[in-house]
Amino acid sequence: MCGKYIVSKSPKASSVSPVPQATDNGHQPQPIINLDHGDPTMYESYWKEVGQKYSVTIPVFQSLSYFANMKNLCWFLEPKLEEEIKTLHKNVGNAITENRHIIVGTGSSQLILAALYALSDSLNDPNPVSVVSAAPYYSSYPEITDFLRSQLYKWSGDARCFDKDGPYIEMVTSPNNPDGVIRKPVVNRAQGMVVHDLAYYWPQYTAITSPADHDIMLFTVSKCTGHAGSRIGWAVVRDENIARKMVKFIEINTIGVSKEAQLRAANILEIISLSCQRQKPRDLDNFFEHSHQLMAERWKKLRNVVKNNQLFYVPKFPNQYCNFTNEFTETYPGFAWIKCKEGVDCEKLFREHKILTRSGKRFGGDAEYVRISMLSRDEEFDLFVQRLSTIHGTGNQN
Amino acid sequence: MCGKYIVSKSPKASSVSPVPQATDNGHQPQPIINLDHGDPTMYESYWKEVGQKYSVTIPVFQSLSYFANMKNLCWFLEPKLEEEIKTLHKNVGNAITENRHIIVGTGSSQLILAALYALSDSLNDPNPVSVVSAAPYYSSYPEITDFLRSQLYKWSGDARCFDKDGPYIEMVTSPNNPDGVIRKPVVNRAQGMVVHDLAYYWPQYTAITSPADHDIMLFTVSKCTGHAGSRIGWAVVRDENIARKMVKFIEINTIGVSKEAQLRAANILEIISLSCQRQKPRDLDNFFEHSHQLMAERWKKLRNVVKNNQLFYVPKFPNQYCNFTNEFTETYPGFAWIKCKEGVDCEKLFREHKILTRSGKRFGGDAEYVRISMLSRDEEFDLFVQRLSTIHGTGNQN
Repeated sequence: MCGKYIVSKSPKASSVSPVPQATDNGHQPQPIINLDHGDPTMYESYWKEVGQKYSVTIPVFQSLSYFANMKNLCWFLEPKLEEEIKTLHKNVGNAITENRHIIVGTGSSQLILAALYALSDSLNDPNPVSVVSAAPYYSSYPEITDFLRSQLYKWSGDARCFDKDGPYIEMVTSPNNPDGVIRKPVVNRAQGMVVHDLAYYWPQYTAITSPADHDIMLFTVSKCTGHAGSRIGWAVVRDENIARKMVKFIEINTIGVSKEAQLRAANILEIISLSCQRQKPRDLDNFFEHSHQLMAERWKKLRNVVKNNQLFYVPKFPNQYCNFTNEFTETYPGFAWIKCKEGVDCEKLFREHKILTRSGKRFGGDAEYVRISMLSRDEEFDLFVQRLSTIHGTGNQN
Repeated sequence: MCGKYIVSKSPKASSVSPVPQATDNGHQPQPIINLDHGDPTMYESYWKEVGQKYSVTIPVFQSLSYFANMKNLCWFLEPKLEEEIKTLHKNVGNAITENRHIIVGTGSSQLILAALYALSDSLNDPNPVSVVSAAPYYSSYPEITDFLRSQLYKWSGDARCFDKDGPYIEMVTSPNNPDGVIRKPVVNRAQGMVVHDLAYYWPQYTAITSPADHDIMLFTVSKCTGHAGSRIGWAVVRDENIARKMVKFIEINTIGVSKEAQLRAANILEIISLSCQRQKPRDLDNFFEHSHQLMAERWKKLRNVVKNNQLFYVPKFPNQYCNFTNEFTETYPGFAWIKCKEGVDCEKLFREHKILTRSGKRFGGDAEYVRISMLSRDEEFDLFVQRLSTIHGTGNQN
C-alpha cells in the first residue's frame, strides 16, 4: 500500500488556478461555493428549531476563577461537562469512559498537541519522535506537528511507509477524515503509541458497532453537535501520567479552557442526550436520527448527480449494523472524498467552476482527489449539487 | 544590575518543606491559604452586586461556525468584542488602538506563544532566537518558551545579562509581575523585538500616565475584569504581517477562540465602559474606582501589619498622576513582592505557616523573595493578614 498516496515531487506549475472573480459579458458572476473547510453549519437548522427554549444564561459573577474543580486531575474541567460527556457516550455506546480520565481542550486541535507533548515528553529522548498517519490523513496533522519545529516530535508522513525502529506516534482517525473509512493502526510495532481521533464516530456519520476502548481517544463538539465556534473537545485517557501531562500542556498553552464554552457545551450535550430518550419532550427531535437523515439525503443527492457522470467517482461504503439505532445503516461521512478521472487536477477543475475544495495533495494523496465538505448549510449544499450537475467534459489535464 | 537576580546553582536541600497537614494535639489544623496563583476572585464581590441584571444569554443556535468575521484579518474575532475592546481602551486611555490589528487569544498565554511564533518564524533563521526578560520576570516565561523544545526560539534568561549579537525577543511586563514596577526594555539593541505584556496596566493597579503605543501589546480580561475563567486575552499589533502570523498560530493551535467566551467578555467590557460614564446607571459603581479602592485598602492592611515587623519588607511605589482618575495615586499591584530578611527562605517560612506563595527563585530572583497574590477573596485576604501578624522571630535560615 505504501506509496499509493505519495505526492509527486514535481507537480505541474498550472495545478492551481485563481478563482474567477467576474465576467465581462454583463452576466452576474456565479457565487463562489466554499466547501474547503468542514464548517458544520448544517446543524444550524436543527438548533434553530430547538430555539430559544434551550439557550444558556451565564450570570456575570459566575466562573471568574481559573479553577473549575480543584479535586480533579483536570482542574479546569467543569463537573457538569464531564458528567454530560460520560452520559452521552453511555447513551450512544461509542466509547468506554469508566475509569478513564476526561480532559477538556480548546477544540480537539489543542488535544492533538497535548497528546503529542504528553507521549513524546515522557520518552526523555533527545531525538524527536516520529509522528505518522496512513494517507490520506487529516490535512492538518503535518502542520500541527511541525509548525513550532519542536525537538520533541516531528512529522514523518504516511504510516504505511514508516520503517524506522524505536518509538513512534500513529494518528488514527476513524471514521477517517477525508475519506470516511473505518480505520485501525497500520504500523503495529513495539514502542508504538496510538492516538485515536474519533471526531466522526457518531451515529449521524457511521454505524456504532462497539464502544471504542483505546488509550487516548479524542472527540469534539464541532463534529458531534455542530458547535465548532465553541472550541470544545475532550480526550478520554487511560493512563494517569499521560493524562497529567496533557493537562500540563493545556495549562502552559492556555491556562485551561473557557468556562462559558464548557457550560454551553454541557448544556448542548444534555439536550442531545435528552433527545435520544424514549421519554423525550415532544417538540425535541432525536438529534442523531434527524442529522443522520439529513446526511443520508445529501449523500443520495450527491450520488444521483454523479451516477451518469464519467468525470467523478464517489466512494461506496459497506452497510453495517448500528447498535445505537438497532438497524443496518450506510456510512455518510462528513466529507466526500471525490476522485476525478485519471490525469485531472480535481481541485483545479472545481475551482474553475467556483467550487472551493481541498486538494488530495493536502492529505498526502494526489491531485486526482478532492475533499468536499458535506456539512454546509442547505442552500449552499443544494447550490453545489446543482452546479456539479453542470460539470461535464474531460476537464483539465495534469 | 546583571546578576542581581541570578539563582544560586546549588540551593540548600531543605529549601522547600512539605505543607503540614494536621496536628496531633487535638487542635483544629489551620486552613491552608493559597496565594501562589494570581486567581482574581477579588472582583467576584463587585460582579455579585451587579448581579443577574447583566447576565449573558446565548441561544443554542448561535455561533456554530468557526468563523466570526470573514472580512477581518482575525477571522475568529467577534466584531462586538473588537468594538468593546477599542471603546474601553479609549475610555481608560491606556492604549492606542487606531490603525492597529486586534487579535483575540485564549488568554494572554496563547498570545505570548503567538507573538513568539510570529516574530521568530519571520526571521527564517535556522537557529532559535533568544527570548529574554529582566529579572524578576513573570515565572511562566521560561516554561512557555521552552516546554516544546522549539527550534524557533529559546529562553535565554535575565535580559540584563543578555550580551549576544543578532536578533532577540524581549518580554516587557509593565506594571511588572511579580514586583509591580513600571518597566521599559533594558537590552535596547538593533534587531531587538519587544513584546509588551500590559495585563496590569489598568487604573485599579497603577496610574494611567499615557496611552501605550508599542508594536505588540498584550492584555487580558483576567486581570482587568477578574474573569480569568473566560480565557480571553487580546493583542494590539501594529504590523500586518506579524498580526497575520499570530492569527496563523491560533488557527493551528486551537482553530480560533471560543465564541461564548468572546461574547461574554464583550458584554463585561461594555458594562465596565458603561460604569465609567458620567451618565451611568445609579446602581452601577464605577468598576475601576471600586476596585482601586479595594486594592488601596488591601495594601494599607498589608503595610500596617508589616510596619513593625523586622522580618518582612514590602516595596514602596512613587505617587503618579493618573489621567483616568485625574488625581495623583499610589500603585497597588496585583501581587505583593515581599522580601524577607537576609538569609531567610521566604517561601519556606510562609509554607511553615500554611501560606502558599511563589518563591522568588521562580522569577529568576532569589529565595529571600516571594510573590503573594493580592487578588484573592476578602475572607482569604483577611485571614492572610491576620496570620501574617502572628509571624515573628528570625525564621529559618538558608
